[in-house]
Amino acid sequence: VFELDCTILTDKKVLDASGHTAKFCDKMMTSKDGLDFVRADHILEDWIEHRLEAPGVNAALAQELNDVLARIDDMSLPELDAALRKYFVPKPAAAAAAAAAPGAKKDKKADAAAAAAAAAAPAKVPVYDDEWQPAKDFNLMFGTGIGPSGNSPGFLRPETAQGMFVNFKRLLDYAGGKLPFGAAQIGKAFRNEINPQQGLLRVREFWLAEVEFFVHPNRSEHDRFDRIADVEVRLFGRERQLGDRKYDVVTIREAVARGIIRSQTLAYFMARTWLFLASVGASKQYMRFRQHLPNEMAHYARDCWDAELLTSYGWIEVVGHADRAAYDLNAHQDASGHKLDVYESWQQADWKPYDAVAAKLNKGAIGKAFKQQAQELISALEKLGKDDAVALEAKLAADGKAPFGGVELTRDMASFAIEKAFHKGETVQPAVIEPAFGIGRIMYCVFEHSFRQRAVEKETEKRNYLSLPVSVAPVKFSVLPLKPSQASHRDVAERVENLLVANGISCKVDGVNETIGRRYARTDEIGIPFGITIDDDTVDKAHADFDSVTLRDRDSMQQVRVKLAELEKVVDSIIKQRMAWSDVVNTLKLPIWEAK
Amino acid sequence: VFELDCTILTDKKVLDASGHTAKFCDKMMTSKDGLDFVRADHILEDWIEHRLEAPGVNAALAQELNDVLARIDDMSLPELDAALRKYFVPKPAAAAAAAAAPGAKKDKKADAAAAAAAAAAPAKVPVYDDEWQPAKDFNLMFGTGIGPSGNSPGFLRPETAQGMFVNFKRLLDYAGGKLPFGAAQIGKAFRNEINPQQGLLRVREFWLAEVEFFVHPNRSEHDRFDRIADVEVRLFGRERQLGDRKYDVVTIREAVARGIIRSQTLAYFMARTWLFLASVGASKQYMRFRQHLPNEMAHYARDCWDAELLTSYGWIEVVGHADRAAYDLNAHQDASGHKLDVYESWQQADWKPYDAVAAKLNKGAIGKAFKQQAQELISALEKLGKDDAVALEAKLAADGKAPFGGVELTRDMASFAIEKAFHKGETVQPAVIEPAFGIGRIMYCVFEHSFRQRAVEKETEKRNYLSLPVSVAPVKFSVLPLKPSQASHRDVAERVENLLVANGISCKVDGVNETIGRRYARTDEIGIPFGITIDDDTVDKAHADFDSVTLRDRDSMQQVRVKLAELEKVVDSIIKQRMAWSDVVNTLKLPIWEAK
Repeated sequence: VFELDCTILTDKKVLDASGHTAKFCDKMMTSKDGLDFVRADHILEDWIEHRLEAPGVNAALAQELNDVLARIDDMSLPELDAALRKYFVPKPAAAAAAAAAPGAKKDKKADAAAAAAAAAAPAKVPVYDDEWQPAKDFNLMFGTGIGPSGNSPGFLRPETAQGMFVNFKRLLDYAGGKLPFGAAQIGKAFRNEINPQQGLLRVREFWLAEVEFFVHPNRSEHDRFDRIADVEVRLFGRERQLGDRKYDVVTIREAVARGIIRSQTLAYFMARTWLFLASVGASKQYMRFRQHLPNEMAHYARDCWDAELLTSYGWIEVVGHADRAAYDLNAHQDASGHKLDVYESWQQADWKPYDAVAAKLNKGAIGKAFKQQAQELISALEKLGKDDAVALEAKLAADGKAPFGGVELTRDMASFAIEKAFHKGETVQPAVIEPAFGIGRIMYCVFEHSFRQRAVEKETEKRNYLSLPVSVAPVKFSVLPLKPSQASHRDVAERVENLLVANGISCKVDGVNETIGRRYARTDEIGIPFGITIDDDTVDKAHADFDSVTLRDRDSMQQVRVKLAELEKVVDSIIKQRMAWSDVVNTLKLPIWEAK
Repeated sequence: VFELDCTILTDKKVLDASGHTAKFCDKMMTSKDGLDFVRADHILEDWIEHRLEAPGVNAALAQELNDVLARIDDMSLPELDAALRKYFVPKPAAAAAAAAAPGAKKDKKADAAAAAAAAAAPAKVPVYDDEWQPAKDFNLMFGTGIGPSGNSPGFLRPETAQGMFVNFKRLLDYAGGKLPFGAAQIGKAFRNEINPQQGLLRVREFWLAEVEFFVHPNRSEHDRFDRIADVEVRLFGRERQLGDRKYDVVTIREAVARGIIRSQTLAYFMARTWLFLASVGASKQYMRFRQHLPNEMAHYARDCWDAELLTSYGWIEVVGHADRAAYDLNAHQDASGHKLDVYESWQQADWKPYDAVAAKLNKGAIGKAFKQQAQELISALEKLGKDDAVALEAKLAADGKAPFGGVELTRDMASFAIEKAFHKGETVQPAVIEPAFGIGRIMYCVFEHSFRQRAVEKETEKRNYLSLPVSVAPVKFSVLPLKPSQASHRDVAERVENLLVANGISCKVDGVNETIGRRYARTDEIGIPFGITIDDDTVDKAHADFDSVTLRDRDSMQQVRVKLAELEKVVDSIIKQRMAWSDVVNTLKLPIWEAK
C-alpha cells in the first residue's frame, strides 16, 4: 500500500468523470424568506421516527410510516416533496424541537410533550407549503476558479479517493504492474454541509484517511488473511437488520466462510479496522460493523460495511468499507480515453492452450496471379479461422488447388498448419476495496469512550480522567519536580526531559508550585498516560532511593520506583507497547512505591 | 511551542482584518485577446536584467536600468506600466525566450543570440502597448462560498499564520497567560499563482510549516540562546548586498553581538533553521541567510532574513524569518474589537513604586452641604493628582477649610495621605517572530543537493544515487533475499521485515529475481540508506556466518556482517542517528564484509 498526497484543488473534469458534479448533492429546502436551509430527508426522517413513537398510531399508519422511512434515501425530489406535504411536517424548528435526536436517550416528559405536539401538528403548526420552497438538489462541493482567467472551474475535493484513481497508472508502475496493490491518503476533505452539527461529527472541513485497494475483479482471496482471521467482530448484517435485529459475534474467518462478508479482502480490511479502532481507544463493547441495506448502496457497489461506534449521539459511522467493483476506474477511463486496466501474466501452469493457425503464404505468387486483388486475398488468408484453414489445406493437399474469395488458389501459393499456442494472460479492470476513515469522528468517539470518573479519598467530587492509550495520547509523559523551587529537583527534571526528547517522546514538564496530587489530577484530565516525579529521595545521596524517580500509571494510579540509569529502558518498553503496564512492572521487576 | 491545526477555509472577515483581501495581489498583465496572463514585475525584471548583460549598454543606461531594477518591488501600477512602455519590453513570450533565467548558467551562444534580439527589440518585436492591457492587481486567493446560502464569502488560506493569530487568546491560556510562547502549524496553503513554474518551486497548492513565536515587544533575549549560539552561519546582510556583496561567516552569538541580526529570538530560530536544513539533507556550502532590503519588507516588519539554498535555478528562498512586531495581533484586535494582549506580572524585585493618593472622603457631609453638585465634587476629589492633593491637605490642615471647585470644603469633609504603591505589571501587545518553511521548496532543493553520481567498476556509465539522510528517507531499509526463489532466504527476509515493522521502521522487501548489484543500484537510486541482505551463509548452519546478514551503507557502499540476534540493537543505533555510519560500525565492532 503506497501512501500518497494528492491536491485538494481538483479540476472539474475529474469530478465530472467521478459523477460528483452531477450527483454529490443533498436535498435541501429553503424557507420562503430565503433565510433558513434544511436537509429535506433529515427533516422527514426525524419527523416520521417521532410520529412512530407518539401514542395513537394504529398498525396501518405505522406500517405506512415505516415504508416511507425505508424509502427516504431512494426518494426523488418530487416524492420527497409529496411525502413532506402528506405527513404534515411542520416547519423544521418545531420539528427539531419535537423530534428527539435518534439514538439519544429520551426524556419521558419531553417525549410526551412532543407527542402532544405531533398529534396537534396538522392543525396547529404551519404546514410545509406555507413555509418552504420545494426541495432542491444542493451540490455539497465548494467551487472556485483556478488560474488567472477565472475560466477553469475547480472544486475542493469532497473525498481523497479521486486523486488516487486518477494516479492509478503511476501507482501501478510502482507496484511493478501487478495486482493486488493499494494506495492510501490522509488529508483534508470538504463538504458544504447544509446543517453542520454535533461537534466533530458533521463539519465542512475534515480529515479523511482512505485506502483504495485494487484487486483482480474475480479474485476474493487476501494473502495475509490468516494473520487476522481469528479476530472476533460484531456484525450487524443486512438480514439481521431486516430480521431479528441481533448481532453475529463471529471470527472473521467464520464471517467469510458463512458468506456474511463477501470476500477475504473486504474482511481483511474490516479486521484491521476493528484492531485499529480498539488500539486508538475505542471500547470493543461499543463497536460494531453494520452492513448497508440495498437502498443505501450505490448501484455499482457489491458490498458495504460501516464500522460504527456507540456514543451519546447513538451509533456513529466512523469507517466505511466498500467493495466498489470497477466503477471508479471505469468512469475515469471513459472520461479520459486513457486505459486504466492491468495486463495480468499467468503462471505457466495456468496458461490456456488454443489451436493457432500458422499460415505460410507465397505473396509473390499471389501478387503475380491476382494483381490488385492480391492484398485483399492475403489479408483474408491471414485471418482464416481454424476450421476454414483446415478445410482449405485439405482441399489444396488433395487437389493441388482450391477456390477462395472468387479466385482459384494453387498449392504453391498457401499452406496451413494448426499449431498449439497459449493464452498467457488477460487484461482486466481492477475492482477496488475502499476503507475510508473519518478521523474527526473517530477522535470524538474515542474521547467519549476514554472519558472516566473515579472517587478519590477525602474528596467529595469524583475526578475525571481521560484514559487515552499511549499510542494516541499527544503527551506521553509528564515530568514533575516535586518541589519546583529547588534547583536540584528542577535539574533532574531537565535531565529527564532531555532523555525523553532525545528518544522522540513527547512530554510536558509541570513545574507549577502546587501539590503533586493536583498536578497528577490535571495531567490525568488531559490524558497523559504516565508521570515521572522527582522528589527529595531522588537527589539525596544518603537515601536508598537516590538517583531514582517515581513512575506513575494514570489508569491504575500505581507508582513504581525506577533508577535514572534504567529509565530509558523502562520508557522504551512502555512506548513500544509490547506489554501492558502490569507486565512492564513485573517483567522489569520495578518496586511498587507508596507516597509517604 | 504548541502545534495546532486550523481550518483551510477562512472567513472573509479574517482576511479583511489581516489585509489579504485588499493587498495579497500580484501585478498582472492580460494580453489584448484575453488569453495570456503574465506577472508585470517579473517580465520587467527579467527583461532589464537581460538588457544589462547585452553588449552596447553604456554606463548611463546601465545606471538607469539598475535604478529601475531596485525600484520594481515598490512600483505602483502606473509606474510599472510607464517603465514597461519606456523600455520597450516585447511581448512576454519573446522576452522569456530572450532573457535567460536569473542565476542559471548561461549558454554563450544563446546569450549572443539573445543580445542580438535585445538590440533589435525596439524595432522588431511588438511593443507593450500593442499586445497588452495595462497591469492590474490580481488577488491571489482562491475564493468560495461557505454554507447553503452562498452569501458567506470565504477563501482558502494563503498562509497558515492567520489561524494562529485568531486563536491567540486560547493559545495564551494554554501557555498559562505568560510570554514568550509559540504556535506551530503544518498544513496546505493556496495561492492562485499567475504563472506556476519551476516544478515544486512555484505552485498553487503547497505545504507550509509556520511558527508564530509571541514575545514581549521590548525584550530580545531567548532563554535557550546558549544552546545554539555557537552555530556558524553564512549571512548576506543588507549592507553587504548593497556594498561588497560578500558574506559574513559568523557564529550566531557574534551575529547578535555585532547587531547584524536584530535579536536573540530571531537569531535563535535562524540557527534552528540552519541546523534543520542541514539535517534534512541540504548542503551547508549551498546555504545562506539573506536579509531583506528595506523595499522588500512590509512597513511594519522590523527585520527579515530568508534562508536560501543554491540550486540549478539559482538561490531559492526556502524559509522566511520575519520579526513582524505587533502588526498582526493589532490588526485582528482592531477588526474584532477583542483585546489580543497580555498582562505581564513582574517579579516583586521589578515592581515600580509610585506615590498613590489615598483620599478619605466624608460623602454624607459633602452631599448634605453641596446637594446636586456633590457627586461631581466627590468624583473630582477621588481623581486628584499627587501635587493637588498635597496642597489641598496642607490648606485643610492649616486653615480647617479650603476652596475647591467653586465651593469651600471643610476639614471634616476630606483628608488626603500620600502612600507608597507599586505598579506590579503591564499590559503589552506581543510582537511576533515568524519562521515560515516552504516544504515543497525545501524538498526540491534537498533532491538537488542529495543527487550524486559515482563510477562503478566494469560499468561505463556512472550510477546515480540519492544521498537522502536517514531522517527524511521515506524507506529506511531494503530487505533483500539474495535468492528469492529459496524459501529459506524468503523466510529470513520476512523475519527481518517483521522486526523492522515492529520497531516502526519503514522498509521495502525487494524479492525480484535479479542480481544483488542491480537491486542495490535500484534502492540507491531512490535513496534507501541501508540494505539488509540474506544469503546462503545466513541459512547455512555449517557456516561461520550462520544466522547473520549483510548490512550495507548506501553512501560508502561498505558492508558489515550482523548477527540476527543483534540486528535490532544495530538498527536502533542507526535510526536514532546518534552516530554516523562509521561510528556505528566501530562502536558496535561490526566485522567488515566483502562480497564473495
